[in-house]
Amino acid sequence: MAAVDYPPALKRLAAQLRRLPGIGPRSAERVSLWLLGGAEGVRCREVAEALQEAADSVRACPSCGFFTEAELCEMCADPQRAGGPLCVVEQATDILALERTGVFRGRYHALGGRLAPLDHVGPEDLRIGTLLQRCRAEPPAEIVLALGADVEGEATARYLAELLRAEFPGVRLSRIAQGLPAGGGLESADELTLSRALSGRVTV
Amino acid sequence: MAAVDYPPALKRLAAQLRRLPGIGPRSAERVSLWLLGGAEGVRCREVAEALQEAADSVRACPSCGFFTEAELCEMCADPQRAGGPLCVVEQATDILALERTGVFRGRYHALGGRLAPLDHVGPEDLRIGTLLQRCRAEPPAEIVLALGADVEGEATARYLAELLRAEFPGVRLSRIAQGLPAGGGLESADELTLSRALSGRVTV
Repeated sequence: MAAVDYPPALKRLAAQLRRLPGIGPRSAERVSLWLLGGAEGVRCREVAEALQEAADSVRACPSCGFFTEAELCEMCADPQRAGGPLCVVEQATDILALERTGVFRGRYHALGGRLAPLDHVGPEDLRIGTLLQRCRAEPPAEIVLALGADVEGEATARYLAELLRAEFPGVRLSRIAQGLPAGGGLESADELTLSRALSGRVTV
Repeated sequence: MAAVDYPPALKRLAAQLRRLPGIGPRSAERVSLWLLGGAEGVRCREVAEALQEAADSVRACPSCGFFTEAELCEMCADPQRAGGPLCVVEQATDILALERTGVFRGRYHALGGRLAPLDHVGPEDLRIGTLLQRCRAEPPAEIVLALGADVEGEATARYLAELLRAEFPGVRLSRIAQGLPAGGGLESADELTLSRALSGRVTV
């Protein structure tokens, strides 16, 4: 006698959910059963609609790479941000993290990743061409490199700094600071963080 | 200046995902961004399709309450299980857990819950009428009550036992055993578990 199991459509749903980040096999099964638990499959349909709507209407802003439903995202469309500083980040999701600090009010540019030769990610795989085009079309007051403090982030920042300094010698080029994380004591900081905090010390 | 945020359709998707069990606000946002990360919204569409398909084709077996895509589930449709024991459970998902043990080969009946007066769940809210109908139409060799060992499970089992004994005096009525969980030592068992394990002792 073949083992009894859930119907194929339920298993296909669980298989799709298992692909999502942070969802393991057990949690995919649990979520599938919950989704099918509503009357007449209403839960499934509501989530399916939200997915369909997001797929249909959300796209990447052709200028900065952030998410938008319009032609341009609200930051690229905002005339008050024109001619201000331009902040270069790795991922579109980094933009909102920086924006939420409230410290920076300029435009952004998401590269869509960082240089990683071991993963076969070269300059041509990143949105570097569009970055240069944007800077040529409307030279920013400053270019802020807000890339990760890891090896790939460092390498990407160094590569971009060289490129941008050569083409836009008049534009101020900066990198976000490295040092102690807020709330962190010296005892919990590693050697590299401490050495960077020291060499990046600011006069008070 | 209004704070920049993700587009409305992305936020509606995250709101839908936040309803799923085990998904918090941060994880809903993370999953939404991942779903929108694929080219042309292909990830969104694949999951939406699986949801739509499951909603369209998976239903509750009208006899036992398990999930099925056919008229009856494979256990209710299996002639080899006819006339055997009938196992009563709270939730349809309990069926697969019992079936996977390989110890029981009969039919099942999911009540769709348990008596919980505080939550306004009375006998009329459970699939008790269909249970009686099934037993009248095809008297089982035995009725096994496989309900939870908590207060509501106990109350439901006692209620059903009384009802079934009155209407089907010739049918053997049993409950699954309570006692030490497999792999558990006496030191980790609570008093109630130990007292039930003692009173349920079996001659060896």
